[in-house]
Amino acid sequence: MKKLINSPETVVTDALAGMAAAHPSLSVDLDGKIITRAGGPVPGKVGLVSGGGSGHEPLHGGYVGYGMLDAACPGEVFTSPVPDQVLAATRAANGGAGVLHIVKNYTGDVLNFRMAAELADDEDIEVESVVVNDDVAVRDSLYTAGRRGVGATVFVEKIAGALAERGAPLAEVAAVAAEVNERSRSFGVALTSCTVPAAGKPTFDLAEQEIELGIGIHGEPGRTRGPLQPARDIVATVMDAIHADLPLAGELLVMVNGMGGTPLIELYGAFSEVSRYVGDHGARIGRNLVGNYITSLEMQGFSVTVCQLTETLRDLWDAPVDTPGLRWGR
Amino acid sequence: MKKLINSPETVVTDALAGMAAAHPSLSVDLDGKIITRAGGPVPGKVGLVSGGGSGHEPLHGGYVGYGMLDAACPGEVFTSPVPDQVLAATRAANGGAGVLHIVKNYTGDVLNFRMAAELADDEDIEVESVVVNDDVAVRDSLYTAGRRGVGATVFVEKIAGALAERGAPLAEVAAVAAEVNERSRSFGVALTSCTVPAAGKPTFDLAEQEIELGIGIHGEPGRTRGPLQPARDIVATVMDAIHADLPLAGELLVMVNGMGGTPLIELYGAFSEVSRYVGDHGARIGRNLVGNYITSLEMQGFSVTVCQLTETLRDLWDAPVDTPGLRWGR
Repeated sequence: MKKLINSPETVVTDALAGMAAAHPSLSVDLDGKIITRAGGPVPGKVGLVSGGGSGHEPLHGGYVGYGMLDAACPGEVFTSPVPDQVLAATRAANGGAGVLHIVKNYTGDVLNFRMAAELADDEDIEVESVVVNDDVAVRDSLYTAGRRGVGATVFVEKIAGALAERGAPLAEVAAVAAEVNERSRSFGVALTSCTVPAAGKPTFDLAEQEIELGIGIHGEPGRTRGPLQPARDIVATVMDAIHADLPLAGELLVMVNGMGGTPLIELYGAFSEVSRYVGDHGARIGRNLVGNYITSLEMQGFSVTVCQLTETLRDLWDAPVDTPGLRWGR
Repeated sequence: MKKLINSPETVVTDALAGMAAAHPSLSVDLDGKIITRAGGPVPGKVGLVSGGGSGHEPLHGGYVGYGMLDAACPGEVFTSPVPDQVLAATRAANGGAGVLHIVKNYTGDVLNFRMAAELADDEDIEVESVVVNDDVAVRDSLYTAGRRGVGATVFVEKIAGALAERGAPLAEVAAVAAEVNERSRSFGVALTSCTVPAAGKPTFDLAEQEIELGIGIHGEPGRTRGPLQPARDIVATVMDAIHADLPLAGELLVMVNGMGGTPLIELYGAFSEVSRYVGDHGARIGRNLVGNYITSLEMQGFSVTVCQLTETLRDLWDAPVDTPGLRWGR
């Protein structure tokens, strides 16, 4: 295992210290492992909280800021945040208009966020939750009942964050978050495994010319393994899986996401193939992201997330955002 | 070799097609391999052109846009653009106020940009050039006479781009570009090699617990090899090298740059160590970038670039920029 770290035990707090040093727009509680906007919650605005295991950066801490999250609570690498931590993040995000929990569908995350929501209720903080489950690759995986939550989380955080910034009430913010999730589908592919620092060895092994189709963001198994193929054929497999689940139609928001170890030159090549596929199927890409947005440590590979836009969703997507991981229009 | 590509022969044009599909703000000439701002040159504004081998994305094509470059001319992977290509980019960037060539110090790049400048002169396009040579690791490397040009290129493109956007004449834009280069130093470290698609095998080999200190962005050798150490110690070696060459003082612009295969969680950990080191040496980081800005395909590793700011340079750094790779304030 070759990693640029001090030790497996300190990898998360060291990164949080780096985020604190790099981004004056954030307030980082190193002991409590909570990232909030500097200046505290926005009075009267619905607060957005997300979290989950570390190792997926910039998700979630990198999406704290204007137009997106109010607080993030990162667990250890690939490990759910604990309920008290989620509760503390919920308190820190509460501007008096209630808090939306954005939860990726992993059993530990779902349980711990639910427990935190109950504890918050005891403190008279109103909480709604959306569970993101956009991965079409497998149903019931190593860490989930039902589908895993992956790339659509970025879309949910951005779009719900924009609506909250406009002053919408909690029920509406929760509804748009659920709508984005329902309209989104993802599928991922691994060329190599990643190595969890505390484990010290690769999560799985792939042969020299083998890839894993339908990989999860923790390296959990996908649908199948197959030979390495030209990008065009890999993309066709990915897009076929998405298209079979939610037919491509109309204007789409598409993310070609790197898993952490994939060079941008390859992601752009993949995006070209995705764009061609979408056009060939009578739809069009109205908005896009190409880059590392929800990663799996140093894994080589990529995922595609597709969201069927509406005019309202496009408008919310285009709204200003100012976070370390996404920034435009302000 | 495991790569998400169609073929080694098409990797650059496939990526350019992806950039064209992803970014309506860009105009991409696939045959000529030139990326310009959609809408053409800005009349009366100094045009900025940069280029070099592909494989360093988002550099340079990702920095074409408002407040930064007017045109980029990417060569094949790790291969200089040809003179005719640089000339075509120069023409495309010329808004009548002359063109600045931003050239990383590699022999092929320097020669081909110089030849293009002479050809442009024949067409009455005034060209000034700045050769970036910020890498303190080695003098006279595999591809260079003198120091290599690396991370400071990003700073030069941003800051000179901002001044050009304000309407400054060519001589002033060239002067600020040279000033940024003179005030900047870089040093890189590799944990793993990268593989050039056309070569099909790693550029170099490192043992399981070995790293290369002072690596170049094409995998060319650095100062020395040593054992993998905690991030704090690696960062100390990097910063010692920079500090010995240009003592840290005053307000700094610091980039902790990933080589392409390094997860963001590690880059933030490294930034924390850089921040501590800078503070311990009586300077402070006023502005920063943490992420993948000048990469070496899928290489794992990082580089640090430090620029001694002035008030003017900070103001130009903060000016609005709107490119695929850097975007803020607009």
